[in-house]
Amino acid sequence: MKAFKPVRGMRDFLAEETSLMRFIEGKARKIAKIYGYKEVITPVVESYELLAAKIGEEMRSRMFVFKDLGGRDVALRPEFTASVARLIATTLRTEPRPLRIFSFGSVYRYDEPQKGRYREFWQSNYELMGSNMPEADVEILMLTNSLMESVGLKNYVFKIGHIGVLRGIFNQEGLGEKTQNAIMQLMDKKQYEEALKIVEDAGASKKCISTIQELVKLKGREVFTIAEKLRKLVEGYEKAVEAVKNFYEILRLIRESGCKMDVIVDAGFARGLEYYTGIIFEVYVPEFDIALGGGGRYDHLIELFGGEPTPAVGVAHGIDRIMLAMQMQKATVERTERAVMVIPVEEGLKGEALKISQMLRTADIPVEVEVMGRKVTKALEDADRRKMEYAIIVGGKELKEGAVVLRNLKRREQKTVKLEEIVNELKGHGD
Amino acid sequence: MKAFKPVRGMRDFLAEETSLMRFIEGKARKIAKIYGYKEVITPVVESYELLAAKIGEEMRSRMFVFKDLGGRDVALRPEFTASVARLIATTLRTEPRPLRIFSFGSVYRYDEPQKGRYREFWQSNYELMGSNMPEADVEILMLTNSLMESVGLKNYVFKIGHIGVLRGIFNQEGLGEKTQNAIMQLMDKKQYEEALKIVEDAGASKKCISTIQELVKLKGREVFTIAEKLRKLVEGYEKAVEAVKNFYEILRLIRESGCKMDVIVDAGFARGLEYYTGIIFEVYVPEFDIALGGGGRYDHLIELFGGEPTPAVGVAHGIDRIMLAMQMQKATVERTERAVMVIPVEEGLKGEALKISQMLRTADIPVEVEVMGRKVTKALEDADRRKMEYAIIVGGKELKEGAVVLRNLKRREQKTVKLEEIVNELKGHGD
Repeated sequence: MKAFKPVRGMRDFLAEETSLMRFIEGKARKIAKIYGYKEVITPVVESYELLAAKIGEEMRSRMFVFKDLGGRDVALRPEFTASVARLIATTLRTEPRPLRIFSFGSVYRYDEPQKGRYREFWQSNYELMGSNMPEADVEILMLTNSLMESVGLKNYVFKIGHIGVLRGIFNQEGLGEKTQNAIMQLMDKKQYEEALKIVEDAGASKKCISTIQELVKLKGREVFTIAEKLRKLVEGYEKAVEAVKNFYEILRLIRESGCKMDVIVDAGFARGLEYYTGIIFEVYVPEFDIALGGGGRYDHLIELFGGEPTPAVGVAHGIDRIMLAMQMQKATVERTERAVMVIPVEEGLKGEALKISQMLRTADIPVEVEVMGRKVTKALEDADRRKMEYAIIVGGKELKEGAVVLRNLKRREQKTVKLEEIVNELKGHGD
Repeated sequence: MKAFKPVRGMRDFLAEETSLMRFIEGKARKIAKIYGYKEVITPVVESYELLAAKIGEEMRSRMFVFKDLGGRDVALRPEFTASVARLIATTLRTEPRPLRIFSFGSVYRYDEPQKGRYREFWQSNYELMGSNMPEADVEILMLTNSLMESVGLKNYVFKIGHIGVLRGIFNQEGLGEKTQNAIMQLMDKKQYEEALKIVEDAGASKKCISTIQELVKLKGREVFTIAEKLRKLVEGYEKAVEAVKNFYEILRLIRESGCKMDVIVDAGFARGLEYYTGIIFEVYVPEFDIALGGGGRYDHLIELFGGEPTPAVGVAHGIDRIMLAMQMQKATVERTERAVMVIPVEEGLKGEALKISQMLRTADIPVEVEVMGRKVTKALEDADRRKMEYAIIVGGKELKEGAVVLRNLKRREQKTVKLEEIVNELKGHGD
C-alpha cells in the first residue's frame, strides 16, 4: 500500500507541538474562567445556510461544503461566531444578559496553504453578548491582551479600527449593503484605490471620496490625536461622528484600565467578515504579517439569526499562529517531567512490575513499564535514549525483601529501596 | 430569518456539559501522562482511501465522505486508529519502539441518533505500538480501568474476547478474509445463527461448526475456568490454541498486577472493525447497553499502511457515553468557584472598575465586570441571580481613600476594604 499523507492543507501535530497547543488551550480556558466566560462546545458540522448567512462572500466560497448521507447541505465551520449566535438565538434565548461565551476548537477554510495558514486550524473564541457599552469592547481587548501575555509573548501590537465610522459615511451617502461589503473586502486587503473606484461608481459625493482618501491615512500610536483628527474629518456624517465618539470612549477606557496594550489606531482598517458594526481589531507580532487574532463588535447578528436584538462583541485567536509567534519569540515553556521506567528482570515478575507501576501512577509519577520483553541492559539503554530519569529494576532477590533497585539514570547510581519508600524517594529528588 | 438548529445527529454542549467533558478530557490527558503516552493531534479531515482502508464495510458506509474544493476524496475521521497508523508508517517510522500515542478529539459516523449515540462524538484514544507481549495488552486494559476509576465510575465491567482464537479456527478451515470479516460483523451483532450459516456455506468442516456453536456459549466471570474450557474446545486448531495461551497469559497478568478489574470473558465476542488480531474488549456499565469504550490488538495494520511490521494494541473511549454513565451513577464532580462582580457606581469610574478587575484576575480570582451600564442595585440583583459570591462596588468616596466596598452576597454583609487588601480578603474567605 502506498504511503498516506495528510490531506493538502491539513497537518499533524507531533508530541512537542501538541503539548504547546494544549498549553495555550489551558491558558485560554483559564482566561475564560477569570473573565467569567462559560465554555460551550458546538458541532464542527453545521448547516451551510447558517454558516453562509453573514460571513462574507470571500469566506463563503472557501468553506468545506458537502451533502451528508441524508441529503442535507452542511459545511465545516469556518469560525465560531455563527454557531454561538445560533445558540443565543435559540437555546440561550432567555438567559439573563450579559452572556459571556467561550469556545475552543478547530475551524476549516480552503485557503492556499502557507506558513501559519492551514485548512484546519485552531481558535479560542470569546463572545460578550447583551452589552453595547464601551467597557464590553475593552473587556474583549483586555482578555486578548491577557492571553498574549500569559503565553509569554513579549512583543505584539493591537491594530484597531471602527467599522461604524465607515458605515456611517456610506449609509449617509446612500450606498447599499452589498456595495458596502464589497468596499470593505477591498479595504481589508488594503486595495484602497479599487475600493474608492466602487465608492465613486456607486454615486457617492466628492466629499465622501476625499473623506475616505484622507481617512485611510489616519494611522498611528498617538491614538487620541488620531481620534481627534478623525472626528474633524467626518464632521457632517452624523452616525460617523457618533462612531468616533464610541471609538474615543474605548481608547480612553483602555488607558484608564491601566492595561499595558500597545495600540495602533488605523481608521482605514476593515475586516473580511460582514457582520461587524463597531470597533474591529487585530493583533500582530513583528515576526510575520498574519494576525494572531481579531474581532470586533457585531450588534445585529443575533437578530439576523432569529434572536432578540442583542448587541455583541467578540474575538477569535488563531492558536496555530500564536504557537508560531511563541516559537519565534522563544516564549516556549520549559516542561520538566520526571519519568520512570519499570523493568522486570525475568518473565515471572511482569505482574509485579505492573503492580509497582500502578502504585507510582497513583502518586502521579509518570511510568513506562517495559513491554518489549528486553533484558535489563537493553531496556536501560532505551530509557537513556528516551531521557527518562529513573529506572526501577524489579528482581526476585530484592523483591523477597520487599524491595527493588532504583537507578538514577542521569547520575548512573543505583540503590536498593523498600517498596513503601519508592514514592518518597522519587518525589523527594530534584524538587 | 428562521431559527437554526444543529444538524441532525449533532449537538451542542452547554456550560455544564462542557465542563464535564473538559473534566474527563483532563483525566484522560493525565492518564496519558502517567502511563507515558505522548499526545498527537491529527486532522479531522483525512483522505477517504486512508480511512476506508481497514475499517470494515459497515462503518465505511457510514462515513461523512465528500470532495474538497481541489477534487480530493476526503472524509471526516470515524476513529483515530487509521490516522495514528498513518503517522507510525510515515513521520514516526524511525522512532524507537515501543511508541505510546494518545489522541483526544471528535470523530464522525452517520449512525441513527439515539441516547448516547451522536453523529459527532468524542473519544480519547491510546495506542501502544511495537510490542506483541501480553503486558502491552494488559497496560491498555489497566489504563482504561484507571480512566473509569478517575472519573468516579463505581460500577463497570470489562468484556474480553480474543479474535485470534476465531481467526485461528477459520484460517485453518481455509476461509478467506472477506468471509471471515462478514462472519465477525454478524457475531459482533450477536447474530450467531446467521454467522454460522456463512461458516457452513463457506465449506467449513462439521467440527468447525460445532466448535463455534460451543465457543459462543463460553462466557462468564470465572475467567480461568473458561479459558481452560476454550483451550480444550479448540484443540487441533494450532493457531487457535496459541491464541488461547496468549489470552490466558493476559488474564493471569491482570490478576498478578493487583488491578481491581471486573472482567467477563466472552469467547464469542467480536468487534466491527476489521483490523483486530488478538484480544478485543469493551467496557460496560449496567445502566445502558452501549460500550463506554473498546479496543484490542491489531498486529498487521501499520504494515498495511506502508509501515514496518509493528504489533500494536489500542483503545478508544467514548467520552459522550462516559459523561452519560457519570450522570447516571451520580459521579459528577462538584465544582466550587468563588466569582466576583465588580460594579462602578458611576460612569466615570468604569476605568477604575476595569483596573480592579484586572488586579483580581492576576490573582486567579474569576471576575465579571459590570458592562450593562446598570445602577448598583440592578447589577447586584443580577449577581445574585448568577449565584456569584461577592460584589465589589467601586465608588468615588471610598476610592479617594484607596478603598472599595466588598459585599458578601450570600451573607448580605458589606464592608469597606483597602485596595491592597481585597485579594487577601477574597482568598482568605471560605477556604
